[in-house]
Formats: sequence, structure tokens, C-alpha cells
Amino acid sequence: MLIKVFVPAHITAFFIPKFHEDPLLAGSLGAGINLNKGTNVFVNIDEKGLERRVQIAFDGEPVKKDDAIISYSVANEMIPSEFVGEVEIWQYFDFPNGHGFGNSAGGALGTALSLAYAFKEKTFLQAAQIAHKYEVQYKGGLGDVIAQIHGGVEIRVKAGAPGIGVVDNILFEGYKVLAVPLGKLSTREILDSEVVELIKKEGAVALEEVLKQPRVEILMNVARRFAERTGLLTGDMLDIAKELDKCLTLPSSMVMLGKSLFAFLKENEIEKTKTMLEELSIENYYISDIYNQKPKVERWMEGSL
Amino acid sequence: MLIKVFVPAHITAFFIPKFHEDPLLAGSLGAGINLNKGTNVFVNIDEKGLERRVQIAFDGEPVKKDDAIISYSVANEMIPSEFVGEVEIWQYFDFPNGHGFGNSAGGALGTALSLAYAFKEKTFLQAAQIAHKYEVQYKGGLGDVIAQIHGGVEIRVKAGAPGIGVVDNILFEGYKVLAVPLGKLSTREILDSEVVELIKKEGAVALEEVLKQPRVEILMNVARRFAERTGLLTGDMLDIAKELDKCLTLPSSMVMLGKSLFAFLKENEIEKTKTMLEELSIENYYISDIYNQKPKVERWMEGSL
Repeated sequence: MLIKVFVPAHITAFFIPKFHEDPLLAGSLGAGINLNKGTNVFVNIDEKGLERRVQIAFDGEPVKKDDAIISYSVANEMIPSEFVGEVEIWQYFDFPNGHGFGNSAGGALGTALSLAYAFKEKTFLQAAQIAHKYEVQYKGGLGDVIAQIHGGVEIRVKAGAPGIGVVDNILFEGYKVLAVPLGKLSTREILDSEVVELIKKEGAVALEEVLKQPRVEILMNVARRFAERTGLLTGDMLDIAKELDKCLTLPSSMVMLGKSLFAFLKENEIEKTKTMLEELSIENYYISDIYNQKPKVERWMEGSL
Repeated sequence: MLIKVFVPAHITAFFIPKFHEDPLLAGSLGAGINLNKGTNVFVNIDEKGLERRVQIAFDGEPVKKDDAIISYSVANEMIPSEFVGEVEIWQYFDFPNGHGFGNSAGGALGTALSLAYAFKEKTFLQAAQIAHKYEVQYKGGLGDVIAQIHGGVEIRVKAGAPGIGVVDNILFEGYKVLAVPLGKLSTREILDSEVVELIKKEGAVALEEVLKQPRVEILMNVARRFAERTGLLTGDMLDIAKELDKCLTLPSSMVMLGKSLFAFLKENEIEKTKTMLEELSIENYYISDIYNQKPKVERWMEGSL
């Protein structure tokens, strides 16, 4: 059987990391956006064979266990211990890896949900918790999985794994999202550095303001302030953000954590923004709708791939 | 501006009521199904006028405040205190009222979400909590609102309002849902009677089994046992359930709480089930898909009504 899961890309606008020994209690507070582009996971289960084999591929290329340790760990826990046969997990990413779009969580969650659908031994939240657990353990991210299961423009109001943390949504209207990946950034390095204290302080201020006035307009204002005050958005990237702002009603900001920018676009701002990106010699950008649903899990017809 | 919200009908399969002084901590544990038919709420906001006026209509007929006290209370709390003008709330129900399909919660939640979308002062969960609060306070129901915001085949694993209670989902494949409304039943009367103790006991047994094996097949088996052992499914209704079972793989059961039956249908069971319903002289029934998303909130174009 072949199963397909779509998990939205998730952009964090600002955050407060919450570390905890128990990965189910670790997570983050903050806010972000789920996009209608992201990670597509196809899982093919073949019950023939004499041994248990799990293969994972990123964008069509098989990867070694160590390079996909999060998804391998998820698969290993989701596949029943008595299963004998082959499980192929094909993960396709609309956004580049390591740029802050939640690919790692998307692959982990897509893997968990496909296998929950196939083997019918775990619920939606149990599968999502397993994805969250290995994301946290191997430092893929803290809040992407729980954000992705809710969709929309989200506010993480209580940290933790799915079923423990709480995610709220802002209702919005008439926006698309521009995403501009400019380079990689190691989440791990930032979270291990001194800037974490500043992130916690500025994150708390930002969260309070968004909860007081839950609107995307406020969200983007506080996100930009967070990005600048933490010193994460500086130099060339800040210069590009300022150029983009000239075309936009709401300020652009930095994707947490990637060397990437994002912004809300109104329909009538799309053309001038494209022209500006061309002037800045930026060819690699995405304009997406916001994805307002849960991840989509379905049986995929053979032959329609 | 005209806003449309769709909230799925919600059928409870079994439940454990959790009463609490604080309505945000009251709720229910249990399991149920969200359907792709339900309640459509259209809200029209006209900022002209000298005073604040709120009008509610059920299926096109204006209703008095006392007959729509839950939705009036929700509207009153959701509309900003400084607002002057007219708010018309049109609620349309696919299923008959009082038969256990969550119409009251659908109307309350649809009203809350439309007004959150219009006035941008409250988040999704804040609006849903207000709907839950008045549902509980005026005994419309305990678990419908939180079930409806999650969609799908749901298991309520922690009781409480949206943002406090926890709802999980069972992943399923290839089923439609048959719903047969046969008569009204007062939720309030059942919850005030002695049968509550039996409901709590049988509900706990059912929940444990579904969590151990989270499959719709188990869900329907324990739901039917719950319905019979609590003495709620008896007499003519039980006779009809047994007739329906002859056409079905999974047992049918009773909607909690309404004099209504429901069942999962496979594609190849639809025709013989229709023939059986005809033989039983039952003309009023519904065959729906399961609704797997959050309630849909959107601006509705004038003229497309």
C-alpha cells in the first residue's frame, strides 16, 4: 500500500524556547505561519520479504540512517515490532533544507502519520508526539511539529508536545506569504549560544502583545522587532528586509531559524514585490497561500505518482 | 460584511460527563464523529444605525432571545462593547434540532468564529471557549464544541473547554456515515437522572478499549455495548439497529444524546442499507462523509447566497 501525507512548511516568526529533560514537556512558545507548500511524504509498505527493512529518501535520493536519524527513529517506533517486510519512506521538500521551513519536522510528522494510518496501532496525537519527541531529542526543532498539526497563523500559548502544548490561531483575511531563503543557519548553534537569553526576553514581550491584539498586523510588527532586537536580523539580510518593506504594508521579518526572510503580501503588492526581488537579483523565492488545515493523510493510488 | 462559517455536525458515540463549577473545566470524555453536513452560519454586520442590535434566525426564521439564549450570549460577549450597528446571525441546520447532532454547539461556535473573524479582537480558541462556556452553562452540551474544532473521528482524552481539554483523532479509511434521526431526547433530563452513574462507568470502559486499539471497528463495538448497557438503546430503536446490522460490517449504534441511530458504511453497503431503510419505512436519513478539518471561516460574497 502507498500512503501520502502533506505537512505544511512552518515559519516561526518569534519564539521562546522551553527546554526540559522530558522531550514531551520541551517545546516552544511563539507564533508562526503554515504554508500550503511544504513536505510530501510517500510511504510504501511491502509485506513480502524475510526481514524488516526501512529505507528513507530525501527528494528521491536514499539517505543513510545517520543523515535522517529523526525520521528513522520515528519509523522504528511507529512500525509494529512484529512487522516483517519493507517500508520505503520518500520525503519531498518544497523548500530547501536548513533554511527554517520545518522540513525536518515535516518529514518526521509525515512519516509518523503515514505509519499510524497504515498500521492502525496509534492515534493522530500519539504519532505526532513520537515525531515531536525525536525532533526535540535530535535538535531538529522545538515547536514545528505541534504548529504543523494545527495549521494557519498560529500562536503557541503553552509549550510541549502535541496533546500537551496548546496552539491557538489568528483569524486573518486576504494575505499570501512571501518566503525568501537566503542561506542556512544552525538552530543548534543559536540555541547553544548566549543569544538565547535575549530570545527569551524579547519573545515574551512579543507574545504578550500578539495575545493582547491577535492580528497579523501586530504579529509582523512584533516579529520584526524581535528579529532586530535579538541581533539575529542584521547586515545584508536586514538591508534586503528594508528594501522589501518599501513594497509592503506590513514589515517583512526573518524566519526563525534560517537565513531567510518572509512577509505577508496583499494581492496588489505581489507584482511590485516581484520587481523589487528582481532588482535585488533574488531569483529564489516563494509566494504561497496559508495552509489552514491539519496535515492531509490519504491512500495514494499506485500509478498516480 | 457577510461572513460564512461551516461547523460539522457532531455525533457522540459514547461519553463520560465531567461536571465542574467552572464551565471551562466542565466537558466530557468520549468519542464521536464529525460529518460534512452540519451548521452553516452567515453573519451580516452593518455598522450603520444608532444602536446595537443583534438578531438571530434559525433556518430563516427569526428567534426570540430566550429560544436562542446560547448564541445570543455568545454574540453579546464577542461583539466589542463599543460597537454600534446591526448584527444579523443566520443559522442553517442540515440535521433536525434536538436529535443529537450538535446543532446548538454548531450555532454557538459558528457565531463565535464569525465574530472573531469580523472584529479581530479574539483568537480562534478564545472564541471557541466562549461558545463552549455558554453551551455548558445553558446545558446545550458538554463536548460538542471541542470535538467540532478538531473534526474527524475524535476521542476526547481530557475534558474541558477548547485550549484546556484534549481531543485526539483515529485515522480511518473508506467509510461514510449513516445517520437516522428518529426522535428528540432531552440531554438535560438524561444528565439529571440516575442513569448518569451507569454512563460514567460504561463510558470509562469504552474509552479504555478505544485507546488501547484506536480503530473505528473497536469504536463501533464499544459504542454499541455502551448504548445497550446504559439502557439508552432499547425497544423499537434497538430493533431498528439490529435490522440495520444485517446490512453492515460494523454494528450500528445510538447517537448520544438523541433518539437517533448511526453507523459506518462501506461503499458496497450503501445500496442494501437504503433498501433496508425503505423496508423499515424510514424515509428520513442521511449518508455523509466524515469532515476531517477545522470549521471553515470565510468572507461570503454578497449575491452568492
